[in-house]
Amino acid sequence: MDNSFFSKFTPKEPKFFPMLESLAEVSSKSATQLINCVENNNPEIHQRIRDLEHEGDRIIEQIYYELNDTFITPFDREDINNLANGLDDVTDQIYGCAKRITFYKPKQIPQAAMQIAEMVNEASELMLKAIQGLSSLKKRASEIEQYCNKMHEIESKADEVFQNFTIELFANCTDAIEVLKLKEIVNVLEGITDEIDHIGKTIKMIIVKYS
Amino acid sequence: MDNSFFSKFTPKEPKFFPMLESLAEVSSKSATQLINCVENNNPEIHQRIRDLEHEGDRIIEQIYYELNDTFITPFDREDINNLANGLDDVTDQIYGCAKRITFYKPKQIPQAAMQIAEMVNEASELMLKAIQGLSSLKKRASEIEQYCNKMHEIESKADEVFQNFTIELFANCTDAIEVLKLKEIVNVLEGITDEIDHIGKTIKMIIVKYS
Amino acid sequence: MDNSFFSKFTPKEPKFFPMLESLAEVSSKSATQLINCVENNNPEIHQRIRDLEHEGDRIIEQIYYELNDTFITPFDREDINNLANGLDDVTDQIYGCAKRITFYKPKQIPQAAMQIAEMVNEASELMLKAIQGLSSLKKRASEIEQYCNKMHEIESKADEVFQNFTIELFANCTDAIEVLKLKEIVNVLEGITDEIDHIGKTIKMIIVKYS
Repeated sequence: MDNSFFSKFTPKEPKFFPMLESLAEVSSKSATQLINCVENNNPEIHQRIRDLEHEGDRIIEQIYYELNDTFITPFDREDINNLANGLDDVTDQIYGCAKRITFYKPKQIPQAAMQIAEMVNEASELMLKAIQGLSSLKKRASEIEQYCNKMHEIESKADEVFQNFTIELFANCTDAIEVLKLKEIVNVLEGITDEIDHIGKTIKMIIVKYS
Repeated sequence: MDNSFFSKFTPKEPKFFPMLESLAEVSSKSATQLINCVENNNPEIHQRIRDLEHEGDRIIEQIYYELNDTFITPFDREDINNLANGLDDVTDQIYGCAKRITFYKPKQIPQAAMQIAEMVNEASELMLKAIQGLSSLKKRASEIEQYCNKMHEIESKADEVFQNFTIELFANCTDAIEVLKLKEIVNVLEGITDEIDHIGKTIKMIIVKYS
Repeated sequence: MDNSFFSKFTPKEPKFFPMLESLAEVSSKSATQLINCVENNNPEIHQRIRDLEHEGDRIIEQIYYELNDTFITPFDREDINNLANGLDDVTDQIYGCAKRITFYKPKQIPQAAMQIAEMVNEASELMLKAIQGLSSLKKRASEIEQYCNKMHEIESKADEVFQNFTIELFANCTDAIEVLKLKEIVNVLEGITDEIDHIGKTIKMIIVKYS
């Protein structure tokens, strides 16, 4: 097909691929730090995630600047813009989660939080691979699709862990303030897998449109 | 107008209509089961909703497969994809609600939950009719629009029931854990009408674009 | 560039600009009333916000009617529709917030609520200016972009105020029901700045596409 993502702005405008990849790398690095944060929170880890969040902001501004400055069709622009915003949202939410863990000071971090943090990390690595595949979308469509499907599976599993955690929490914890804190922390963690799944769906739509 | 949804992929590609209709039927059947679940929850009803949710997953995979395999314009693809994802989300949320009712074990299911479950059922029937109308969009545009408007009215009413319920709950219930459980159950129920209204807005946008 | 928002439906179809501006004015007026509501809630203010919400509903129906009745391209339609829905959502959420303040009857409105209400008001004025700029998008692109960037900054600040408020609330308030009420009120307030930021992103995407 003629109107492919690949043929349209590669090799004419290959600069968007490395920028999206950098943004995905920032998300993925934040996800790795998030595991440290859940395991053993300290101010240094918190600061590292904050720095990554700022780096993401810098890259997304550059993408927006280049989108304005580069002639590509409006619809490719929209796809690049959606991906960039989605990737940035992942890092933002990871930082939001780290802040809650740091400042809510729950009595104990539940096992479910650790499990979901690991799922976030796994999903973010798949997301990075999927984004890295975009520059050769036509050749690697089915591989990328598989990454996206796995991202979706992880989201379903994380949702189940969160729901089971909530059920247990309601059944066993009588301190309502503690219930609120823990439920919110684990909910925000689970929300990161939703965000990653959302990026997977955007990528699958790009495949449907352009490959 | 030339670029109509109807003229563009009907009768060339009429296969997407029955698939979207099947997906809407699954949502609508789940909504009917949801009333049973709220009224008199038991494991059998829970299992039936779970089965419907799996059936929805199967249909959406098929839609995605056909979208990849069929030549239609990128923008029709996006509309079909959005509708399919929306319909699937309705069923997912109904299942999520059934799980919460089953496992949170609230002391008593509030009257508001029953009221909203009936609204969900009514809205899902309108949604099914609207989806069934898409295959003859040009002829039935104003009828479909009316279904969508009613879906929106139901959403507003459900929101009001939820807000009034929350006000009463805060005023009368002193058991904070019970407040959390009930508020979440009724909130998730109300969220289903939001999701259905969102589908109505997508359909109205399709009418604006293609009819 | 040829396919500009400006060149495409202005001066041919300038009627959409005043309608979007009216909708933004309604949101902005509601935001001003919201400050009154947080400061010193009374039934009259609540009624005024309700009236504004109904006025917004009237305008959005008219926009939808005109979109159906006017020949413009499907993609301009989508942008107008998205902006109109977003502006309407802002007013709806302001009304939802006023209702909660009125009916939850928290013991004391926290300082953070007042701070965020003022941010909402400031952001809504920027949003109004950005919408007013759309009718001369080509000439005023960089000015509009600056409004949108400020809307984004306000959203970040409001989020920080909300998070700090929650941290303090968890640390100091032992009445869980009160915690729930206050957290929800301040969260809904903060959500209005999210909604406004979302409109800013839509406008920035329109700039990228058409200017």
